[in-house]
Amino acid sequence: MVDSFERLPGIGPRTAQRLTFYLLRVPQELLDEFGEAVRDLKKQTVTCSLCYNVAEEDPCPICRDQNRNHGQILVVEEPLDILALEKTGRYKGVYHVLGGVIDPLNNIGPDEIRIKELLARISGIKHSGSAVISEIVLATDPDMEGEATAMFIANELRRRKGSEAQGYRVTRLGRGLPTGGDLEYADEVTLTQAIEGRREY
Amino acid sequence: MVDSFERLPGIGPRTAQRLTFYLLRVPQELLDEFGEAVRDLKKQTVTCSLCYNVAEEDPCPICRDQNRNHGQILVVEEPLDILALEKTGRYKGVYHVLGGVIDPLNNIGPDEIRIKELLARISGIKHSGSAVISEIVLATDPDMEGEATAMFIANELRRRKGSEAQGYRVTRLGRGLPTGGDLEYADEVTLTQAIEGRREY
Repeated sequence: MVDSFERLPGIGPRTAQRLTFYLLRVPQELLDEFGEAVRDLKKQTVTCSLCYNVAEEDPCPICRDQNRNHGQILVVEEPLDILALEKTGRYKGVYHVLGGVIDPLNNIGPDEIRIKELLARISGIKHSGSAVISEIVLATDPDMEGEATAMFIANELRRRKGSEAQGYRVTRLGRGLPTGGDLEYADEVTLTQAIEGRREY
Repeated sequence: MVDSFERLPGIGPRTAQRLTFYLLRVPQELLDEFGEAVRDLKKQTVTCSLCYNVAEEDPCPICRDQNRNHGQILVVEEPLDILALEKTGRYKGVYHVLGGVIDPLNNIGPDEIRIKELLARISGIKHSGSAVISEIVLATDPDMEGEATAMFIANELRRRKGSEAQGYRVTRLGRGLPTGGDLEYADEVTLTQAIEGRREY
């Protein structure tokens, strides 16, 4: 048990021991439940064939929701990003999970993440005529790899938009000062973007 | 010496001892220089009578710089905020230091910070005709007190703008994801602002 815990990210030998000794004091039915949850984890989750989110059904609840705007696709790196964005309750479109970012230093090129699938999905929607694509929101992380990946996808979209003469917006999540921060400790790039992105108040 | 160091913010007894023992090994001329710098600190700095920045001369170098736009005033809480913004090299206007924020819990009202001085400065510039005010950038911290202070000033400016029929923009620094962050760990308010403030890419 200690070894199993230790293999998890961020859990060292001491924590693994503490968790194991905690479980020793737990009733057997809770142990059965926990054990079953771990064993069946993969069996009970599937990857959504539309957006590649992790879900219990395919298509996932977001892709099946007819109250959402299926013409607005927000592109994220990982399923956890969707959880964070859903918590805001502010986004009413659908998603596309890339499953990573372009990262040449680690040998991850554009073909290793789901960019082809995104482009195919956009053309597919266009050709089936089931929804009109109005916006692609690039929401990869605001770090170097995320920026490079957003730029790569934007260029691909621009090239295709040109030939297919389709009008949809390509946007990027707003950048600037995070809530609760302190201006004096903000890094230069963030401050520059906050100055450039200032808005009428 | 240990006691003097300990009175500084963020320096505990151990660090105070370490710094003191370090100074014991330093040549006497460096000690003289350090001592003099500490003693003359207040004598050599003044508060700029235009923007209330801390400087060695009055007006401060920023207010004396004729290459800067004196019709664009960026309002900050503290002089340290100016240092951070100047490092970006992106802002070419002048500043106004409030010297704090409105904070009712600590009995700091609008009259305790330099809001009157800001309003007087704006009317003064207008009446002297030396520069045309084009923009007031509210750059208080993105926390609760900073937001409340920005809102208070914006309302004051709006009221006066109405009666004086003067056209200048009132803006706030851009909000959203800071650079190098991770979308999945961003708080809900920041993510909401990043979604609302998304820009064409």
